[in-house]
Amino acid sequence: MSVYLHDIPLPEAQAHFQKALEKAGLWSILHTETIPLDENACGRVLAAPVWAELSSPHYHAAAMDGFAVRAAETSGAMPNNPLILEAPHQAEYVDTGDPMPMWANAVIPIEDIEPLNLDGSLADDPRSPDKIRIRAALPPWKYVRPLGEDIIATQLVLAAGHKLRPVDLGAIAACGHTQIIVSKAPTVAVLPTGTELVPVGTPVQRGDIIEYNSIVLGGQVKCWGGKPERYTITPDDFEQLKARIQEAADSHDLVLVNAGSSAGAEDFTAKLVEELGDLLVHGVAVRPGHPVILGMIRRTKPSPEGHTQTPIIGVPGYPVSAALTGEIFVEPLLARWLGRAPHEPIEVEASLTRKITSRSKDDDYMRVVLGRVGEKLLAAPLSRGSGVITSLVRADGIAILPRGVQGMDAGSPLTVRLYRTPKELEQTIFVIGSHDMTLDLLAHHIIPHQRRLVSANVGSLGGLIALRRGETHIAGTHLLDAETGEYNLSYLRQYLPDTPIRLVTWAYRKQGLLVAKGNPLSISGLADLTREEVHYINRQRGAGTRVLLDYHLGKLGIASEAIQGYHQEEFTHLAVAAAIASGRADCGMGVAAAAKALDLDFIPLFDERYDLAMPLKFAEDDLLRPLFELMQDESLRAAISTMPGYDVSDMGNVQFEGIASSL
Amino acid sequence: MSVYLHDIPLPEAQAHFQKALEKAGLWSILHTETIPLDENACGRVLAAPVWAELSSPHYHAAAMDGFAVRAAETSGAMPNNPLILEAPHQAEYVDTGDPMPMWANAVIPIEDIEPLNLDGSLADDPRSPDKIRIRAALPPWKYVRPLGEDIIATQLVLAAGHKLRPVDLGAIAACGHTQIIVSKAPTVAVLPTGTELVPVGTPVQRGDIIEYNSIVLGGQVKCWGGKPERYTITPDDFEQLKARIQEAADSHDLVLVNAGSSAGAEDFTAKLVEELGDLLVHGVAVRPGHPVILGMIRRTKPSPEGHTQTPIIGVPGYPVSAALTGEIFVEPLLARWLGRAPHEPIEVEASLTRKITSRSKDDDYMRVVLGRVGEKLLAAPLSRGSGVITSLVRADGIAILPRGVQGMDAGSPLTVRLYRTPKELEQTIFVIGSHDMTLDLLAHHIIPHQRRLVSANVGSLGGLIALRRGETHIAGTHLLDAETGEYNLSYLRQYLPDTPIRLVTWAYRKQGLLVAKGNPLSISGLADLTREEVHYINRQRGAGTRVLLDYHLGKLGIASEAIQGYHQEEFTHLAVAAAIASGRADCGMGVAAAAKALDLDFIPLFDERYDLAMPLKFAEDDLLRPLFELMQDESLRAAISTMPGYDVSDMGNVQFEGIASSL
Repeated sequence: MSVYLHDIPLPEAQAHFQKALEKAGLWSILHTETIPLDENACGRVLAAPVWAELSSPHYHAAAMDGFAVRAAETSGAMPNNPLILEAPHQAEYVDTGDPMPMWANAVIPIEDIEPLNLDGSLADDPRSPDKIRIRAALPPWKYVRPLGEDIIATQLVLAAGHKLRPVDLGAIAACGHTQIIVSKAPTVAVLPTGTELVPVGTPVQRGDIIEYNSIVLGGQVKCWGGKPERYTITPDDFEQLKARIQEAADSHDLVLVNAGSSAGAEDFTAKLVEELGDLLVHGVAVRPGHPVILGMIRRTKPSPEGHTQTPIIGVPGYPVSAALTGEIFVEPLLARWLGRAPHEPIEVEASLTRKITSRSKDDDYMRVVLGRVGEKLLAAPLSRGSGVITSLVRADGIAILPRGVQGMDAGSPLTVRLYRTPKELEQTIFVIGSHDMTLDLLAHHIIPHQRRLVSANVGSLGGLIALRRGETHIAGTHLLDAETGEYNLSYLRQYLPDTPIRLVTWAYRKQGLLVAKGNPLSISGLADLTREEVHYINRQRGAGTRVLLDYHLGKLGIASEAIQGYHQEEFTHLAVAAAIASGRADCGMGVAAAAKALDLDFIPLFDERYDLAMPLKFAEDDLLRPLFELMQDESLRAAISTMPGYDVSDMGNVQFEGIASSL
Repeated sequence: MSVYLHDIPLPEAQAHFQKALEKAGLWSILHTETIPLDENACGRVLAAPVWAELSSPHYHAAAMDGFAVRAAETSGAMPNNPLILEAPHQAEYVDTGDPMPMWANAVIPIEDIEPLNLDGSLADDPRSPDKIRIRAALPPWKYVRPLGEDIIATQLVLAAGHKLRPVDLGAIAACGHTQIIVSKAPTVAVLPTGTELVPVGTPVQRGDIIEYNSIVLGGQVKCWGGKPERYTITPDDFEQLKARIQEAADSHDLVLVNAGSSAGAEDFTAKLVEELGDLLVHGVAVRPGHPVILGMIRRTKPSPEGHTQTPIIGVPGYPVSAALTGEIFVEPLLARWLGRAPHEPIEVEASLTRKITSRSKDDDYMRVVLGRVGEKLLAAPLSRGSGVITSLVRADGIAILPRGVQGMDAGSPLTVRLYRTPKELEQTIFVIGSHDMTLDLLAHHIIPHQRRLVSANVGSLGGLIALRRGETHIAGTHLLDAETGEYNLSYLRQYLPDTPIRLVTWAYRKQGLLVAKGNPLSISGLADLTREEVHYINRQRGAGTRVLLDYHLGKLGIASEAIQGYHQEEFTHLAVAAAIASGRADCGMGVAAAAKALDLDFIPLFDERYDLAMPLKFAEDDLLRPLFELMQDESLRAAISTMPGYDVSDMGNVQFEGIASSL
């Protein structure tokens, strides 16, 4: 009998799943095995506590190289009142780690004795004298490691559930064990389904979707201690998928079915789960990840451990949804089966950089980038799209906007679950403002200097505003002043009049028109933009490229209304190039590198200067030191020079330093 | 030519080693390899950046199931002003992920349309109607994932040096790659040496040292991304060790020689390194870990990459020294060779619980346990002995007392490098005071409740003093009031008069005399302790067992001076038992379980009550909730009942709750 639960809150979904697993006897350690005690045991989870079989040391051991003595017989020895002890019955040589003679209870370090021959002369070999002279008394058990100093037999050394680290293996060996009982990796079948999917490595056609969710899910299972088996792609064929799910459930501990991205495919999976067992939950109030399916499949015969059911999770098709479904449902289940604690991410409090909205009926898992700018830890939201896997790749953490919250204002406090260590966040350099492709090269070159460049593209003006709000370390800017023909300075005066600023040149670059390969519409300059058959794609308001366009349109007396597509906006050079490459537009303004990247033609029009603006306090901070070093670094300069249209001869030149209002 | 550097500061030692490695061309990524893009790539480190080959999506894709339309043709549609679009040339059905028809630029979700037949009646299959009725207009690109929404070809997706996570693999696949260039695991030879060593699994004799450092070092190498090869034990034979080191250096990227624990063995290694190459450093001012050796071995023939030298690290023999040498010297080298950032532990500030001293000529790596008691994060030092591997197993972190510091007072602030996550520290329950072996069982049973029991044994009185100082959550105490015959209450009145306290019974237990198997000295009661041939081993001042002894000695009129060994103190029941088992003493007072643990005879004398005392504010805190639940838990009670001499019938009974001064 199936209870069919649609779109329920996450805790309810988890509770239903757990109840079904408990009923099926599947809510505890699933399998154990005994493995030898060696370096391969690292990372395994103890399925039973380790009690000491042996004490360590298992005998009284000398803790120094020297002479074992009776402490009482050293009594009275002093620097000016030496004592003589006869070897070996009063003083027996021992190396560190040697067992103490039964009669001895202290060790005199070899550097503290004088070795003597019978006649009182100094002996040649300090280790085998006839007698020794000492000049200090010892208390009992000095320089002796008593039996059990480290571990006493019967003591608890490690509790069950502990994930083994190298030192743990040492302690287990020290207390007399030669093997360990650990939990065994649960087996997980990962079934990608969908007729539109093609495996990695297939040359793609329009409409083909590269199937990589199974790699992500398989990787997650592996990281979390399970043993993934990735199936080949099953097309959308009800009977075929049914047979494979049954086979997978009969031979694995858990089945993950990864629907194609269509809602149709998901309904398919739900129907199959109903036919083959119990559909517990269909749809959880979580975004991304909403259309998840939880259920139990009847095994055709019981597992070796006697289980008659296998849990199944229908994982949504969008890649961000799939990865988060893994984190939310698969990780805790594997933790339970392995007998370890579930992952508990470190949380930090951060301040939201911009206003966001949320669908209030779901918990909303927002990916953010984090960085410390001055005193504030800032959380900048990344793309919210469930298809944008790079939003997870770039994320420093996840902030959950709970159900019922419709949005948050800029500056709101936010709890973020970290994907990185807190220390890494302190290495973040924010570059917000205009997009330049050479910043990718900088991001790559700065890694070995223990820095991380995070750039967000909001246009030159957006960057200056972010600087003013204290939300970035650096703004990338190429704003032309139409009156003076000078770059950036007048904008600094307007937007950051009172903050001490350093303005540094990054590069000169060619701006021009991007057109399809072969320039089919024979576009040669801005005048062509007004032609009826030419569709333009613009940059957003505040972008330096937009300012440049408007400046030259003004000079030529061309009205923006005369240009088709003037109001269609993209946020980066590459996005403009992509729009043209895909036929969405015929022409747009941008840099030569963007044209080359997407195999477009480029009509060069203007040279412009791209600068980095930053508050002086950041410019002088250790955080940015590697940036200034790299601007003088030949390998970075060479890499940028190979990009078409770039000139780095002025890189690092300080254009201005001071208070802009004084300009 | 060898430069021989003795006992130098750590940064200097690291600099010498790095310089030699740079000179030998061994201070960069060592080997790379190309591997297929699958789940096994998780955890590998990128040796080259990943630039996008393909945009993702690589075509304009429908983001919903529905009808692809021209946005312009929906203009004017409103709830009370529906529009009709003809299928398929104005409205073509698409599934999520399908390529958009070239003419279309928006998708109307299927739930927002009315599917119609030619005659205007509702169509049966909403996916293949003759026309659709719509009641809302769409902007261009609504419900479309434009080409490059996630990734644009040529963009930097991941930088070199990045350690691959599951989601990264998805992004790499999405942008058209089928394989990845990663750094290859450096090979590390681990050579245990020492005639006194025996491999794990050998029945041990007095003087045998179980060789497990190679397992710890091998495990570290494996955890840090290297490929360890553990050699069998080489005895202390100069020529044999020389041959094996040369062979290891010829066939590996790094050689670790783990000296036996004797200083002699270490000199051996230094001499060998001098003969086979360059001895760079012998002795670093770090404790534990002091006698470390750093050097370079000449290869008899160059490596496949043309390297003519192989670095060697002489790892000290004591287990704590060995493990810390791994952390200090091996981890950063492997990080460099793999092209990843070295581990940077999270640091926290804590308050030292007790005064410590330090050898001021070395950096002192002190292992500590951490826990939050009230508002304070407390750091309790663990054993400082370099032979005590459990001090590393139990450690929550390491505090480094820098060279020049001779000690620190209780309450001093301390920076601790964490071995655990900060969240785990919040789960620590401190039980400081008298030692009871059943606390080990509690520690084991409390793990599944996301709590961690850390117990330190300082005697009952020490526990009450720790409570008073706010340095523990709970004190374990069994202090008999000689006047009233009552347990603990009068001591609470004396030591914690004004703090609201809860005193809960843990168990009744038998105290008696522990004697060797067979009771060779025929001891039957306290009167026998004064016999000349009987050597007693006592518990420390403030221990409840010591109080109990003194109480009964007083009743019997026996003077403590009449007892041989009365002033020899141990800190736990098991340590007393171990002293007797090893022949250091004949007799001591303790619990039956300790006798059983070490196979001794037990002469039962008295029943006593062992209580847990805690401030009321902690008793009512969520942190301790699982403790109170477990005291009612049948499986824990049953486990304790099986230990000899324990009675749990009163477990959990509240003996007192309130302010002790009111008693």
